[in-house]
Amino acid sequence: MIRLAVIGYGYWGPNIVRNFQGVQGCSVKTVCDLSPRSLERAKKAFPSVEVTSDFQAVLHSTEIDAVAIITPVATHYPLSRAALENGKHIFVEKPFTASVAEARELIELAEKKNLKIMVDHTFLFTSAVRKIKELIDGGVLGDLYYYDSMRVNLGLFQSDVNVIWDLAPHDLSIMQFLLHQKPQAVVATGANHVNGKEDVAYITVYFPNNIIAHFNVNWLSPVKIRTTLIGGEKKMLVWNDLEMDEKLKIYDKGVNKVSGEGVYELLVSYRMGDVWAPRLEQVEALKLASQYFIDCILQDQVPFTDGVAGLQVVQMLEAADQSLKNRGGMVYL
Amino acid sequence: MIRLAVIGYGYWGPNIVRNFQGVQGCSVKTVCDLSPRSLERAKKAFPSVEVTSDFQAVLHSTEIDAVAIITPVATHYPLSRAALENGKHIFVEKPFTASVAEARELIELAEKKNLKIMVDHTFLFTSAVRKIKELIDGGVLGDLYYYDSMRVNLGLFQSDVNVIWDLAPHDLSIMQFLLHQKPQAVVATGANHVNGKEDVAYITVYFPNNIIAHFNVNWLSPVKIRTTLIGGEKKMLVWNDLEMDEKLKIYDKGVNKVSGEGVYELLVSYRMGDVWAPRLEQVEALKLASQYFIDCILQDQVPFTDGVAGLQVVQMLEAADQSLKNRGGMVYL
Amino acid sequence: MIRLAVIGYGYWGPNIVRNFQGVQGCSVKTVCDLSPRSLERAKKAFPSVEVTSDFQAVLHSTEIDAVAIITPVATHYPLSRAALENGKHIFVEKPFTASVAEARELIELAEKKNLKIMVDHTFLFTSAVRKIKELIDGGVLGDLYYYDSMRVNLGLFQSDVNVIWDLAPHDLSIMQFLLHQKPQAVVATGANHVNGKEDVAYITVYFPNNIIAHFNVNWLSPVKIRTTLIGGEKKMLVWNDLEMDEKLKIYDKGVNKVSGEGVYELLVSYRMGDVWAPRLEQVEALKLASQYFIDCILQDQVPFTDGVAGLQVVQMLEAADQSLKNRGGMVYL
Amino acid sequence: MIRLAVIGYGYWGPNIVRNFQGVQGCSVKTVCDLSPRSLERAKKAFPSVEVTSDFQAVLHSTEIDAVAIITPVATHYPLSRAALENGKHIFVEKPFTASVAEARELIELAEKKNLKIMVDHTFLFTSAVRKIKELIDGGVLGDLYYYDSMRVNLGLFQSDVNVIWDLAPHDLSIMQFLLHQKPQAVVATGANHVNGKEDVAYITVYFPNNIIAHFNVNWLSPVKIRTTLIGGEKKMLVWNDLEMDEKLKIYDKGVNKVSGEGVYELLVSYRMGDVWAPRLEQVEALKLASQYFIDCILQDQVPFTDGVAGLQVVQMLEAADQSLKNRGGMVYL
Repeated sequence: MIRLAVIGYGYWGPNIVRNFQGVQGCSVKTVCDLSPRSLERAKKAFPSVEVTSDFQAVLHSTEIDAVAIITPVATHYPLSRAALENGKHIFVEKPFTASVAEARELIELAEKKNLKIMVDHTFLFTSAVRKIKELIDGGVLGDLYYYDSMRVNLGLFQSDVNVIWDLAPHDLSIMQFLLHQKPQAVVATGANHVNGKEDVAYITVYFPNNIIAHFNVNWLSPVKIRTTLIGGEKKMLVWNDLEMDEKLKIYDKGVNKVSGEGVYELLVSYRMGDVWAPRLEQVEALKLASQYFIDCILQDQVPFTDGVAGLQVVQMLEAADQSLKNRGGMVYL
Repeated sequence: MIRLAVIGYGYWGPNIVRNFQGVQGCSVKTVCDLSPRSLERAKKAFPSVEVTSDFQAVLHSTEIDAVAIITPVATHYPLSRAALENGKHIFVEKPFTASVAEARELIELAEKKNLKIMVDHTFLFTSAVRKIKELIDGGVLGDLYYYDSMRVNLGLFQSDVNVIWDLAPHDLSIMQFLLHQKPQAVVATGANHVNGKEDVAYITVYFPNNIIAHFNVNWLSPVKIRTTLIGGEKKMLVWNDLEMDEKLKIYDKGVNKVSGEGVYELLVSYRMGDVWAPRLEQVEALKLASQYFIDCILQDQVPFTDGVAGLQVVQMLEAADQSLKNRGGMVYL
Repeated sequence: MIRLAVIGYGYWGPNIVRNFQGVQGCSVKTVCDLSPRSLERAKKAFPSVEVTSDFQAVLHSTEIDAVAIITPVATHYPLSRAALENGKHIFVEKPFTASVAEARELIELAEKKNLKIMVDHTFLFTSAVRKIKELIDGGVLGDLYYYDSMRVNLGLFQSDVNVIWDLAPHDLSIMQFLLHQKPQAVVATGANHVNGKEDVAYITVYFPNNIIAHFNVNWLSPVKIRTTLIGGEKKMLVWNDLEMDEKLKIYDKGVNKVSGEGVYELLVSYRMGDVWAPRLEQVEALKLASQYFIDCILQDQVPFTDGVAGLQVVQMLEAADQSLKNRGGMVYL
Repeated sequence: MIRLAVIGYGYWGPNIVRNFQGVQGCSVKTVCDLSPRSLERAKKAFPSVEVTSDFQAVLHSTEIDAVAIITPVATHYPLSRAALENGKHIFVEKPFTASVAEARELIELAEKKNLKIMVDHTFLFTSAVRKIKELIDGGVLGDLYYYDSMRVNLGLFQSDVNVIWDLAPHDLSIMQFLLHQKPQAVVATGANHVNGKEDVAYITVYFPNNIIAHFNVNWLSPVKIRTTLIGGEKKMLVWNDLEMDEKLKIYDKGVNKVSGEGVYELLVSYRMGDVWAPRLEQVEALKLASQYFIDCILQDQVPFTDGVAGLQVVQMLEAADQSLKNRGGMVYL
């Protein structure tokens, strides 16, 4: 039985507590937050869980095996380090850390202490992403051409980070999971209009073999859009996460290279076929993620969303920030 | 009565002939194309129009006052120059020319000869763009934040230009018309997968005052998307050109800066209001554009889509191409 | 303080308990159900509420002022009568009763005992229905022409009632609320395919002044549709309850009668204008309904969704059933 | 070579002339209309076709083998009879005639004269309807449960017929083609609001084996809807004719009867599977219909959209009108 403490009980905290409570082999012991009002909310929603504002006590408690760190990104590193140093496995909200250096240090520390790090890249546990992974790995899409995602809506403005650090970790972690390739370089552009932090941004990630990925993130859109296009040589797909029933559509469409008649021509022919929307299981992704973290601890396995996976996302975020400052200069990874 | 010759009778040519035929004060005299098959098609569709493959004859004819140049972009400059030198007004398909230098030379030549240049930026004559212009100029949107357009579909691959020169002229000319500001710099990224020319590309254009514009153009998308988001301080709008009845939606949504309580906080509040889809007249934009070109000649007026407007688009295209080669390096305008 | 017992803890029961728990002036004392498993679920979700399978004890308890009857429709009458006879106010799930005679008897009994009946026509408390009511009452739509609703999806098959008694009470109560007119006659057609009860049905309700209402209800549709069209002389509207953000759209469209030129012609002209989607407050309708029931008791007011409102819906359901048996014969009300 | 005269050159006439002109084995000789303005339009659009207002001359011309009757429905019978009596094959706009009696007489006359009648049920030549037919005939949908269509929009008000005779012939002919069963009875309801003719109507058609069909036709809808749901035991489909790319979707969804555990229960289980949108060829249906009519004459074959198919639709229209007068009384066929 893994005894868990949840650090940070803001917007996302209640979901974390509720899901870990339902996990086989896990017992949520403590919720820790600095705000008395948050602790009150926690106590009311989960009467059987202890609440405290004393993080040190949690750290030194022998009753706690693992902590979930659900706090603003700037605090991920100090809280994670303290937890690891005190022998606790950690489950960290995305993005993993505020810098590559922090991430590297935590990974090293966890290794030394033989503890697990899992970054909460929840989307990797959704049916849609799992199905896309299956299609790509199974060769259904053929060689990949591009990954193009749009994640825009009105707000929620974060006061501590820009729109890239807020919204892009979702898509960067999904892309990393799906493409399973080492990105080469990042280019980012953007602008800020309201509070001095970029609220509109565009990121391009270059991969070998002409694979290109692009991310449109925006806190100032009147409409909510959550759409990803993935183009492959054999098939193409559209994932619209806001669709209720047909989130994923696979298009038997493509372009074939045709050797032209003349020397100067390279002709192209189009293939237009059926569209197919596979049935997706209705699952709560965070429930699966919670169970997976506990299972990894109990069975001493490395989570695929471990510190290294978290680090790869932070690398791209850091590079994007740097490119943004240079207004689109390329940053090699 | 303006007597018009149409040079180039490919995909777009029939629309040009049909529309200019319906224009008051214009008579379409000649269609000129090198392909006998094209001329046959033209003769069948428009029995009253002469057809010829002899461009020189058209140039030197005293029966021709103006020519419409509806040919591949590489030929725009030589054909336009020859026409101007022979005293003909010109109506040129977009993009105006293949380079800034070419555009400048044509503008100068037309001025010297006192002839009109009009670039066929047809979209500027649509009801949707006109209505957006009216909303922006009337201050309905307030200060502009961003312009974000997506124009993607499967093919049509061009053999002579990449996806930027094919699709972006539409959006760049619309943006230029709507924002009426001088762009500062361009950043472009992209990749090619099929015929050696970029088929997926992303362009960012920086303006003063933190206004940013972005263009997503793609020949390899399984779905057709024609959507533009424009964010303003007071209102935001979505223009979906594929919608039949509600192409344009104006959202009374926004973000207000609120002076925070503490020193360190800049709070943000959201405004969520009604959505409004103004009725748009059903017009054929090319018909209006054709009429406008003839009117400008007859009334000796400078078209707002003149050579200079065409040049501004070519400047951005050229800068985008250069940035693309550098994989996202910023190119100042 | 009104002390409430909830009878029936099936699919809808948890929502009822949760909402009444949040109501000012109300205390949920008891949940009563015959199934031990349901009581267990209730106890776990609401530890402070007593659970019992003894309905008689609830009835005779002096600690209970009102009961919410959330059971299958066949039991509404006996449970409601017993509750009223024991001096309890009642909140009854829709449809009110299984027959007009039952409804009449309960209304009479409640009057004699000076007790409140409120039927749970939850939709009348949604922002969308409230806004439509406002538009109709304010004359925005002008004289009404028709009310046309479609409520179809796959399942949930009810074992005790057909699709009309399951799905149509929603729309009939909404229509009754909005039109506020006495219907004249009902025609219904339908068919059964799976379990001997109609799973596809169509109901027409005739009103005076050529107003017509139609209801398409279907348990065998592959897609979920929740759309209502309302046509008026001045404006028309579409209410799509599955839309996230723009549930309600008002169209400035219509048809004008024009006196024709000749004697034999009555010409018609069309008016096509803007579309407008008013912002709707995000409210939980059942929360408002719960509060309203308690307020009506405390302030001794007659709920507008009282027994008489419930009876009117049951009258139409009964008429529809009768017409269905005759395969579309008209049944006067 | 079949020499064709087109009678009636209103809204639909130009499409008829254009399509028959493109047919192998057909020559459009004459356009006949009473309106000089229509003849002028015809002459301008089709300079090689003769125009005349003299129907008698067309009838008695030995240069004409077949006539296309594209006039208001009330004139279909007299014009068709005159054409058949003068030895001309006829292609008649839908609905075939204004009454069953008229249709019967024309069928008999054509048989006696050994002439072809083809009714212009254009939709039966679309890729969507052809594909649905293939799916039903191939057993993909299994036993059919229901056919439910909605064809609504604003206008075009017809001055001579009500909305049923205007819009329902499309859907009734499609249903007849797809189901290939003899309908038993018709129930119709509706109302008129503008010009004394029903502008909103609902038709139910009963078939053997609990198959039911329903048609929602409306001239007073603010939005255009062209959607048909077809439910089968094995699969269900939605045909949305306004969709550009995925008009047809087949759902692997359904309901299975399950023998219940107890005596009183008949349980139902749901099957939820993939969705599939087959690629449909882009064809102009009227072009195929035109070619088919000429082929049927040349090869002496009976069109499947012959007088009898036309009669079946008129029978349902007549029954619907009669039921409408009785406000929903059932009319046996």
